[in-house]
This record gives sequence, C-alpha cells and structure tokens, in this order.
Amino acid sequence: MKNNGFNLVCLDLEGVLVPEIWIEFANKTNIPELKKTTRDEPDYDVLMKYRLEILAKHNLGLHDIQNVIATISPLPGAKEFVRFLRENYQLIILSDTFNEFAKPLMQQLDFPTIFCHALEADKNSGKIINYHLRMPNQKQEAVKRFRQLNYNVVAAGDSYNDTTMLKEANAGFLFNPPENVIKEFPQFAVARNYDDLKKYITEFFDK
Amino acid sequence: MKNNGFNLVCLDLEGVLVPEIWIEFANKTNIPELKKTTRDEPDYDVLMKYRLEILAKHNLGLHDIQNVIATISPLPGAKEFVRFLRENYQLIILSDTFNEFAKPLMQQLDFPTIFCHALEADKNSGKIINYHLRMPNQKQEAVKRFRQLNYNVVAAGDSYNDTTMLKEANAGFLFNPPENVIKEFPQFAVARNYDDLKKYITEFFDK
Repeated sequence: MKNNGFNLVCLDLEGVLVPEIWIEFANKTNIPELKKTTRDEPDYDVLMKYRLEILAKHNLGLHDIQNVIATISPLPGAKEFVRFLRENYQLIILSDTFNEFAKPLMQQLDFPTIFCHALEADKNSGKIINYHLRMPNQKQEAVKRFRQLNYNVVAAGDSYNDTTMLKEANAGFLFNPPENVIKEFPQFAVARNYDDLKKYITEFFDK
Repeated sequence: MKNNGFNLVCLDLEGVLVPEIWIEFANKTNIPELKKTTRDEPDYDVLMKYRLEILAKHNLGLHDIQNVIATISPLPGAKEFVRFLRENYQLIILSDTFNEFAKPLMQQLDFPTIFCHALEADKNSGKIINYHLRMPNQKQEAVKRFRQLNYNVVAAGDSYNDTTMLKEANAGFLFNPPENVIKEFPQFAVARNYDDLKKYITEFFDK
C-alpha cells in the first residue's frame, strides 16, 4: 500500500497488549469461579451476570476491582510497542472489555484511545449493577467507519472475536492466536511477538 | 445526558491546544509571507501551493520544519487538560493541519490520537512536494461516525471550520472564538479557558 500518511492501527487489548483480565483478576483475588469463560458458558449474558454475582458475593465494588487491576502489568514490551505505533501512525484499541477494567491498564500505557464496553456501578456503594455492550460487533463496525474516513487500517488481534475486524481492515494479522484460530483463518499472517507485528505493520504501510 | 460510559471528546487543535502553527512558524523562521491565511487568500489550494513554494525557496525540508515546530509549545495548561480528558473519557483530536506538522506537538502532549491531513515529502531530499486532504469536511464526518458507533460526542473548537462538527456532536462548545463566530453561532456556549471547557464537558456527560 502506498504510504499516503493516513495510517491507523487497530489493536485488540487482551492477549495482545495485556493478559486476559478476568483470568488475572481471578488469580490475584483467589476467586477461581471468575476463571469461567465463554468456553464454559457460551451465553455471554449468563456468564456476565454470574460474574457480577460472584463479585457482589465477595463485596468487590468497582474501586476494589480497579485496585486489583492496577496491579496487573501490560505484557513485556507492550508499552514500547504502543509508543512506537503512536509515534508513527494513529492507534485505536478496540476491545470487548469494559472501560472501567481497561482504565488502570490504559494508565500504564499512557492512555491510548480505546473503544470498548462499559459497566454500570452504583454511585454510592460502588457495587457493579449492570454491564452495557456499546453495540454488537463493535470492532468490525469501527474499522468499517475508519476506512470510510479514508484511513488505511491495519488490525491485529488474537482471537475469534477479532477476525471480523481483521477481514474489514486493509490488512489483518493474528497475534499469538490459539491453533484452532490459525487453522480456521489461514488468510491472516501470524505474528509471534511485537517485532514480528511491527515488521508486518511497517511493511504493509510502506510498501 | 445520562452518563453511560460511552463518552468521547473531539477537540480542534490550533487555537484550542496549540497556537496557530503557520503563524508561529512564520514568527520563528522570520518568514512573514507564511502568515498569509485564508482571510488573505480564500482559495485554500492556491494558498497551500504558495506556502510550499515559500518553504522550497527557503530550502526548508520536512525535517527542518519539524525541528522548528518542536520549539512551539502547547498553550499553557493544554497538557494537563488533555491528560484530564484522557483519564476520564476518550479523546480524538480533529484538525485541519497535517500529520507531519502535528507530530512534534503531539509528542509534547504524549501522543493523543489525531485525525488530520498529510503532506507528501520527497524521500531523499525531504522537500515537501504536495499536500493531501484526507477527505472534505473530515471533522463533521468523523463525529457522525463516532455517533454511529454509539458514542456521546462533545466537540469543541475555535473557528468556522469547527462549527459543522459542533452541530453534529451531542454537544458543541466554542473555545476562545473570534467575535464574528460567536455572533453567527449563538447556539454554542463559549468557553474562555480550560476550566470553563472542563466544566461544560463534565456537566454535559454527567447530567
């Protein structure tokens, strides 16, 4: 792609820049029930309501949760990788996590722009009373609109929920994906580390 | 607006976070011809080609220009204001400047996301050979799409070229605008400093 200066990178968050937040949170708090994922409970709404119940049972309000998440570190090298992207292109993180969980991690990455979902907490108690998905298929919808704004978009992610945005982008790359995703989506090159991904991105924008 | 956590601020750059770049550049380089604006030459293409000619005449390549722009500081308080917005909402700067001019200023603001236009420089000489507008009316088009992505958008700017995005946003505010803009657009509240604007933004998102 001829580099015309309108280059935007869209990155997934969990598994790409930071660890899986629920898993790390479950480890740090010693609450194994919170390790349940969509593999165990395919209905996301059922899973989320279960998680909110567990949090309430342990009296974990938003502030407590954010304090725990603040002790989770981005993946090694993530901060430098994010800085490289912001210095050379535009970067928007597209994630299916929640603003409130992302914030302590975004702080450690110097607050890149992130589009994700949101939790609703009681203003007085801090108890999380609900969650709100901003829109269905938000990653793909965002990439589509960035392209309508005449950006060349490179998207990278590690999982099934990233593949629609990878398809929608001018170029899509998988980052440390599980084997089944590699097999199902052979059209996407696989990056195993930030150096690989940096190489794919710069080569795409500059070729 | 009920705060649902999907809050995005779109800010103009020049006159809001940094000084007018061409004017400052003209001052720093002592090239008064570069102070010409669309008030003097209403045809933007004629104006830009004139500017590029002047730069070439003075042998100013992209690298030289960026070195000069790096000595321009953001407006007093801009860095803290940007940080406040990024900590509490999402922020995307929408500017009619060029990526290459913005970059040394974005660096001083810790690289917030910016959507703007681009210059084309010769890879060897660094001479600026052309400019590329990403799309017509890009500020309004961006705000429209952020709203389609279910963001509540507050937009703020200082000038005529901001008024279409102010209209498109859920709420629009003028920041230190000239008198004629205030008169022509009485529907937009006027902020005289960052404290005013912060108050307008937080009140809008939280009400």
